[in-house]
Amino acid sequence: MPKIRICIIGSGNWGSAIAKIIGINVKKFEDKFEEEVMMYVYEEMIEGKKLTDIINETHENVKYLPGHKLSPNIIAVPDVVEAAKNADILIFVVPHQFVPGLCTALLGKIKSSAVSLSLIKGFTQENDTKLKLISKFIEEKLKIPCSVLMGANLSNEVASDYFCETTIGCKDKIMGAIMKDCIQTENFRVRVVEEIEAVEICGALKNIVACAAGFVDGLDLGDNTKAAVIRLGLMEIVNYVKLFYGKFNMSIFFESCGIADLITTCYGGRNRRVCEQFVKTGKTIKELEDELLNGQKLQGPLTAEEVYGMLKDSNSTAKFPLFATVHRICNKELKPNDLIEQIRNHPEYETNV
Amino acid sequence: MPKIRICIIGSGNWGSAIAKIIGINVKKFEDKFEEEVMMYVYEEMIEGKKLTDIINETHENVKYLPGHKLSPNIIAVPDVVEAAKNADILIFVVPHQFVPGLCTALLGKIKSSAVSLSLIKGFTQENDTKLKLISKFIEEKLKIPCSVLMGANLSNEVASDYFCETTIGCKDKIMGAIMKDCIQTENFRVRVVEEIEAVEICGALKNIVACAAGFVDGLDLGDNTKAAVIRLGLMEIVNYVKLFYGKFNMSIFFESCGIADLITTCYGGRNRRVCEQFVKTGKTIKELEDELLNGQKLQGPLTAEEVYGMLKDSNSTAKFPLFATVHRICNKELKPNDLIEQIRNHPEYETNV
Repeated sequence: MPKIRICIIGSGNWGSAIAKIIGINVKKFEDKFEEEVMMYVYEEMIEGKKLTDIINETHENVKYLPGHKLSPNIIAVPDVVEAAKNADILIFVVPHQFVPGLCTALLGKIKSSAVSLSLIKGFTQENDTKLKLISKFIEEKLKIPCSVLMGANLSNEVASDYFCETTIGCKDKIMGAIMKDCIQTENFRVRVVEEIEAVEICGALKNIVACAAGFVDGLDLGDNTKAAVIRLGLMEIVNYVKLFYGKFNMSIFFESCGIADLITTCYGGRNRRVCEQFVKTGKTIKELEDELLNGQKLQGPLTAEEVYGMLKDSNSTAKFPLFATVHRICNKELKPNDLIEQIRNHPEYETNV
Repeated sequence: MPKIRICIIGSGNWGSAIAKIIGINVKKFEDKFEEEVMMYVYEEMIEGKKLTDIINETHENVKYLPGHKLSPNIIAVPDVVEAAKNADILIFVVPHQFVPGLCTALLGKIKSSAVSLSLIKGFTQENDTKLKLISKFIEEKLKIPCSVLMGANLSNEVASDYFCETTIGCKDKIMGAIMKDCIQTENFRVRVVEEIEAVEICGALKNIVACAAGFVDGLDLGDNTKAAVIRLGLMEIVNYVKLFYGKFNMSIFFESCGIADLITTCYGGRNRRVCEQFVKTGKTIKELEDELLNGQKLQGPLTAEEVYGMLKDSNSTAKFPLFATVHRICNKELKPNDLIEQIRNHPEYETNV
């Protein structure tokens, strides 16, 4: 059987961490995978040198994952078509706004038998009102199946080989097992489930909840309030999946992509951190992005805005007071300490005795 | 209709916090509840004065909830029979080891139509091997129905009126609604469910998971690992309920008594804190209880020991590696950094592709 070729599209913090794992795993399963793994790197100049050259010479992504050596069989390639053309599995791990451009570049240039795996959290916006899952977008644009990987996976901790878990959503059992071999290590434990959409939605919506958790931290409301906000956020994620994607097995929310990722993001992630500062400093999200994230966009407020539009169009903002309030706080329509007032009579409290 | 009389049995930190709420609520619903609420207080001398006298004169439990005023209609009574004899609802909120003695004292001395509500987390041990839920114990000993209340409720935060939620498990819908009126405030939101056992088991077992979370914190393993440990702990709680109490609706674990309480306890509770110190200082649990808790018993290690015995008797320790390992670390049979090794091949990872 021909060996499976993998291409990693993206080389940021998370892309580089996953490349570190995959570089080792393809050698561990050398009968199954081609040793050389192409990694598409958006070319940048670092102190007069190309980032791809630095990675290929030093085996370290000095810009996005400094301090971690990649296996030498990870080959940095600045041309995405060159990187992807022979690949059997394309792993997408880029900021979500780059997906359309990359798909356009790749269309017709990849193997028709290829499959893809998206590690990207967030939605794409097809037009003003309709949100589309990244996996669906990739499937439609490239005409290949797209699975997803989501979990409680802060990149630096994964790169440092601390024990954690992740969830792969893949409809094909055989491909799911191959992806698991490619990704799982002694300290990075993988569970494969079939519900791609639910896995992906958890990954996108948790950032909104993390913003709410950040507001709670900024307001010093304590652990009980934070737990309540996280729980209500989870219930809104569940209800969002039900409303827009039909009923799902509730057990999916017990996976790493569900509660575990939500917890990590609400205690350790940057959406939480920036939103805490939002309360404490009174600055705008934009100002904080410039100050704290070198101008990178914060995912939570962006997703909250997109989701708010979708909820408004379907007349369902009242069913999702936490999501709606996060958006209205981020755009300064409401104050952070309006949060509790807005969720005090959450529909969750009306569904029982 | 005669007004409902409430008696609170217990006056510790949590008992006093709930008394603060109930004292106000009975006046709010004065057509439904008798204004005077008896609170059984285990008599102690505080600087030469009886604690009951202090509470009745200053309306403050200066020992267990200093800084918070109780409503004057909360009457401290040092004799449990005197406090409970006319009550329609008995609210038990004492350390679980005092329950048998109190039930013996109360048997035959209370109204036969009374019902009870237990806020007690933990099990009672009937004999060497069989654990019994506190609510079942109370029901059998006093021959009255017993509901439960559990949630993400650190006492001081509840007393300070920070927003949070709780879950009442009550089989009777009318009684559930009455209990909700008695307990719910604008900032203490109540959901009533019917699954008493599952609610109560969450409350007991979460402390074991919090010990594991404390070990992770002590070992500085980071947020991903902590989220994984909390998730695996939740799955063991779910599987414990299934194994010993039959199948339950998974939705119960999405209530405040489930994930929310688990999160709070794993980030803010004292089981976590003491177990972090256990790792960092190398002292025994007993030494830390003496040092940090004025000699009070820590719930988690105790529950872990009881559960370990029950799992051993049913030959199921292999299905509950996290619970078992917490016990074996607490009694120094294993080292804290054996935790990850013991859960790396958790049965959860074998149930999928």
